[in-house]
Amino acid sequence: MFNGAILVGANERTGGEPFHAVHPATGAKGEVAFSNASTQDVADACALAEDAFASFSSLTPDARAAFLEAVAEQILAIGDLLIETAMAESGLPRPRLEGERGRTVGQLRLFASYVRQGDWLEATIDKALPERTPLPRSDLRRVNQPVGPVGVFGASNFPLAFSVAGGDTASAFAAGCPVVVKGHPAHPGTGELVARAIGAAVKACGLHEGVFSYVPGTTHELGGALVADPRIKAVGFTGSRGGGLALMKIAAGREEPIPVYAEMSSINPVVLLPGALAARGEAMGTAFVGSLTMGSGQFCTNPGLVIALDGPDLDTFVAAAATAMTGNQPQVMLTPGIHEAYEKGVAALAGAPGVTTIARGAEAEGCNRGQHAFFAADAATFRDNAALAHEVFGSSSILLKCKSIDEVNETIASLEGQLTATLQMTDSDADDAAKLLPTLSRKVGRILTNGWPTGVEVTHAMVHGGPFPSTSDGRTTSVGTLAMMRFLRPVCYQDVPDALLPAALQDANPWGLTRRMEGKLEVAA
Amino acid sequence: MFNGAILVGANERTGGEPFHAVHPATGAKGEVAFSNASTQDVADACALAEDAFASFSSLTPDARAAFLEAVAEQILAIGDLLIETAMAESGLPRPRLEGERGRTVGQLRLFASYVRQGDWLEATIDKALPERTPLPRSDLRRVNQPVGPVGVFGASNFPLAFSVAGGDTASAFAAGCPVVVKGHPAHPGTGELVARAIGAAVKACGLHEGVFSYVPGTTHELGGALVADPRIKAVGFTGSRGGGLALMKIAAGREEPIPVYAEMSSINPVVLLPGALAARGEAMGTAFVGSLTMGSGQFCTNPGLVIALDGPDLDTFVAAAATAMTGNQPQVMLTPGIHEAYEKGVAALAGAPGVTTIARGAEAEGCNRGQHAFFAADAATFRDNAALAHEVFGSSSILLKCKSIDEVNETIASLEGQLTATLQMTDSDADDAAKLLPTLSRKVGRILTNGWPTGVEVTHAMVHGGPFPSTSDGRTTSVGTLAMMRFLRPVCYQDVPDALLPAALQDANPWGLTRRMEGKLEVAA
Repeated sequence: MFNGAILVGANERTGGEPFHAVHPATGAKGEVAFSNASTQDVADACALAEDAFASFSSLTPDARAAFLEAVAEQILAIGDLLIETAMAESGLPRPRLEGERGRTVGQLRLFASYVRQGDWLEATIDKALPERTPLPRSDLRRVNQPVGPVGVFGASNFPLAFSVAGGDTASAFAAGCPVVVKGHPAHPGTGELVARAIGAAVKACGLHEGVFSYVPGTTHELGGALVADPRIKAVGFTGSRGGGLALMKIAAGREEPIPVYAEMSSINPVVLLPGALAARGEAMGTAFVGSLTMGSGQFCTNPGLVIALDGPDLDTFVAAAATAMTGNQPQVMLTPGIHEAYEKGVAALAGAPGVTTIARGAEAEGCNRGQHAFFAADAATFRDNAALAHEVFGSSSILLKCKSIDEVNETIASLEGQLTATLQMTDSDADDAAKLLPTLSRKVGRILTNGWPTGVEVTHAMVHGGPFPSTSDGRTTSVGTLAMMRFLRPVCYQDVPDALLPAALQDANPWGLTRRMEGKLEVAA
Repeated sequence: MFNGAILVGANERTGGEPFHAVHPATGAKGEVAFSNASTQDVADACALAEDAFASFSSLTPDARAAFLEAVAEQILAIGDLLIETAMAESGLPRPRLEGERGRTVGQLRLFASYVRQGDWLEATIDKALPERTPLPRSDLRRVNQPVGPVGVFGASNFPLAFSVAGGDTASAFAAGCPVVVKGHPAHPGTGELVARAIGAAVKACGLHEGVFSYVPGTTHELGGALVADPRIKAVGFTGSRGGGLALMKIAAGREEPIPVYAEMSSINPVVLLPGALAARGEAMGTAFVGSLTMGSGQFCTNPGLVIALDGPDLDTFVAAAATAMTGNQPQVMLTPGIHEAYEKGVAALAGAPGVTTIARGAEAEGCNRGQHAFFAADAATFRDNAALAHEVFGSSSILLKCKSIDEVNETIASLEGQLTATLQMTDSDADDAAKLLPTLSRKVGRILTNGWPTGVEVTHAMVHGGPFPSTSDGRTTSVGTLAMMRFLRPVCYQDVPDALLPAALQDANPWGLTRRMEGKLEVAA
C-alpha cells in the first residue's frame, strides 16, 4: 500500500538517498526505504501543476466539490492501515488519530459544501451607467480566481489534519489551485498513503494528473526548490519559526515574490482573572495541566503562558496544577528531534534567572518521552527577558505573577503575536476582561473565555492565525472556510461581452450565486 | 493657508533642511520653504497614531463614516486655492485637477456609505452545539478589525486622488486605522492643504489628534523610518518599482514584518484582434494615441504595449496612430526627475536592437515636456529582451507584431504581472478572445474590452491591482471599496459573554448587520 515512491502526477518515481521512518515510541527504523525527491522531481511536479491549472481552475463549483468529497472517500477507503501507520510513525494514540482522520474528512466535506455555495467567488457587479455625466460609466464585474499552483508543507504534529490532505491542501483545492505537497519525513508512510488517496480521487474524477503531486524528502534543498519554483504562486506551511522564516525569505527573494502562509509559533497566554481564581482555582489548576499535557503538549495552541494576579487564590491554582503534574506520565513525542529540542528548551527555562520550577511530571522511561514542566516567574522578569517568550514545543508552561490588572495588560502588550489568548473569568471579572480585550484583540487571532485553547474547530467563524510570529500573515487563517481566501485573487472585467465572462459574472447567473450588485448583496434563492 | 509645516497630530512643527516646490511648467521654485520632517517627527507621529488606535478603531460605523464625510467637506472648503496650488506644483491642467478633486471627495463618500453598511466587518457566527457528540462545540464568532496604524506614501501623478487623502488614506480610515502620511515633495503645498483639511475634520469630529499626521520631506531616510516604525502595521504606496521594492525590503526585514501594498509599474498590454483591426483600425489608431498621450501618459494604466497580428489592417492602425502622434504637442510632466527618466527610457527604446520608431510627437518647447513616442518590434524580439518590458513612465508605447494568435498568447504569457489588459475586438473575434482570456486573467487585475485602460472608476467591482510587479500583492486593490480589506484582519471570539463581544457579534445585532450564520448569509433588513 506504500512503497516509498515519489508521486509526480500519476507517475511513480524512486530516487535519491533513501530514508526511513523512525518509530518514536521505540526508536526503531521502519522497513520501507523512502525515496528522497530531487529538485528535478519538484520541477516536473510544478510543470504538471501549471499544465493542470487551466482545467482545474475552471471547474464548476459542483465538480470541484465532488473532487473534495472523493478525496475524503479515498482517505476513508485506506482503512485501518492509515491509523496503524500513523500510530507507528507519530507515536500518537489510536483515538487521537481516528479523531484526526474524522476531522480531515470533515474538513474536506465542509470545503465542498462551501465551494458549492459559491460565496467565496465574491461576485460583484456594477452595471454600466451610459447616461452618467460628464462621462458614462463602464460595466464592471469582479470575481475571485485561484492564484495558481500552491506548494504545501505539512506539519509533523497532525500527520493527517495538517499534512498531505490537511487544511492547506483542502483550502487550495477548494480555491481551484493544483497542489504540490512536500512530504514530511516524520510520517512518510502516512503521507504516501494519503497522497495515493488524493491521486485516486484525481483519477476517479477524470481530472488532469497535475492537480496533485507528492515530493517527500528530508532535505532543505527540496523544500527550497518548491518555494522558489516560478510556477508556484503561494505556499502553505505549518511548522517551526525557523522553518517558516526560511521559506518566507526564499519567497521574498524570488523574481516574483509570493506569499508564504506560515503558521509558526505561539505560546497562547491564559489569563486567570481574580473572580475565576477565587471561584475555581483548584479545578482550573487540574484542567490547565490536562490541556498542557494532552498529546504531550504538541499543539500550536498549547497554553505555554499563564498570567495572573499574585495572591492566595493563585496559590490554590498552583498547588492543584503541581499535584496534577507531579507523577504525570510523559508521553512519546513525535520525533527524536522534537524531543531533544523540548528538553533543551525546558532546561533553558529551568536555569533562567528569576524562573522557579513549580512542578515536573514523572521522569521518562523509554525513549522520546517529554517530561512535563511548569515554571513561575515575576511578570517583570518575563518582560525583561525575551528568551522566556520563545515557544518550547511540548508540555512546558510558565506562570507569570502580576501585581495588578494594569501589569497584566502591560504584560500582554509586551507579547509577540499569538494564535490564541484565553480569559478564565466569572461575571465579577467583567470589568477587568473589558479592560484586557482591546489589548488581547491586537495580539491574537482567537480569544476564548473559560475554555482551553487546544482544540480548533473547523467552521466558518474559526480563525487559526494571528499576528507575526504566530503566523506570517495575520490577515489569514489556516483552519476554517476563510482559509480559501489565501489562494484567491480578484479580477475585474470591464465591458466584457456576457458570453466571454466567467459564469459567476454572467447576467443569467447560471451558478445561482449570491452576488453584490451596486454594493448590495442579492442573496441566491 | 500653507506655510511648510510638519503636522504631528494637532501640532505644527518646523525643522530640517527646507525644500521648495518646483513648478514644472516653468522650472521656477515656489516661495514657501517646506520643512523636512525628521525621524523624530515620524516616531512622534507613530506614537500618537498608536495612542489614537483604541478610540478610533472602536468608533461605530456611523461615526467613522461621518469622519470620512467631514474630510470630504473640508477638502471642498479649501476652494480654488487647492486647484491653483496643485496646478502650479504638478503642471496638470485645471479640468483634470477639478475632476480629480471630485474623484477624491466621491471616493471618501463611497467609503463612508460602505462603512455604514458594515458588510466589510464580515460578521460570522457559528453558535454553540452543546449536544454534539462526541464533544460539544463552542460558540464561535468572527469579525474583522483594523490592523493598527498605517503609513501612506502618496504618488506624484495624482496629487489629490492618490496622495494625502487619496485611496490609501481613505481606505485605511474606513477600516479604522490611524494614518501617518509621508508627504510627497513634488506637491508639498497641495499636500499640506489637504493634510490641514484632514486635521480640521479630526477636530470637528472630536477624534483623537493622532488619527492623522503628515510628515513631508525629501529624504529616503524619512520614508524608511515610517515603514520601520514598530507601531506601523501596514503601508500603502503608489510610485516607482524601485521605490516600492525598497519599502518592501525594509518591511520584510523588520522584527515584525508587515505588508507593503505597493502599486508600482505596469505597461498595460492592449491586444488588437483581427476583426477589430479590419473594422476600425483607423479609429483605434487615433483613440490609442489619445489614451497614450492624455496627461502626458503619466498614468499607472497607460497603454505602454500594443500586441497585434501583422498585416495590412495593422498598417492602417499604425498609419492613423502615426498621424495622430506626429505634431502632437508635448505636455508638461510632473517633475524634472520624471521628465528626465522618460527621456532616458525613450532613448533606450529607440536605440534597442530590433526596435523601430513609428512616430514621435512634436519636439518640446519649454521645460519638462515629454515628447511622445511610439515604437514597433517583432514579438519575438520583445520576448527575448526583458528590458523592453520595463515601464517608461510617460507617453511611450511599443507595438509588437505577431504571426499568429498563438504567438499573441505566448507573448502575453511571457509578460510580468500588469494592472490591466485590453482586448479590442468585434463579435468575429470571440474565439480568439476566449483563447486569450485565461492567459490574460492570470497576468492582470482588470481586463477591458473595447475601451482604453486609462481611467479607473471608484466602485465596488473595481480592481486596481495585479500580480507582481504591477503591485506587491496581487490579492488586493488600491481603488474601490475592496481596498479596505488590506487594512483589516479577522479575530475569532470563542464562548465570550455577549456583553463583552464587539457590537458586530452580539446576539441582538445592534448595528443591524448582514451576518453569516452557520455559513449562510442573513441579510440585514
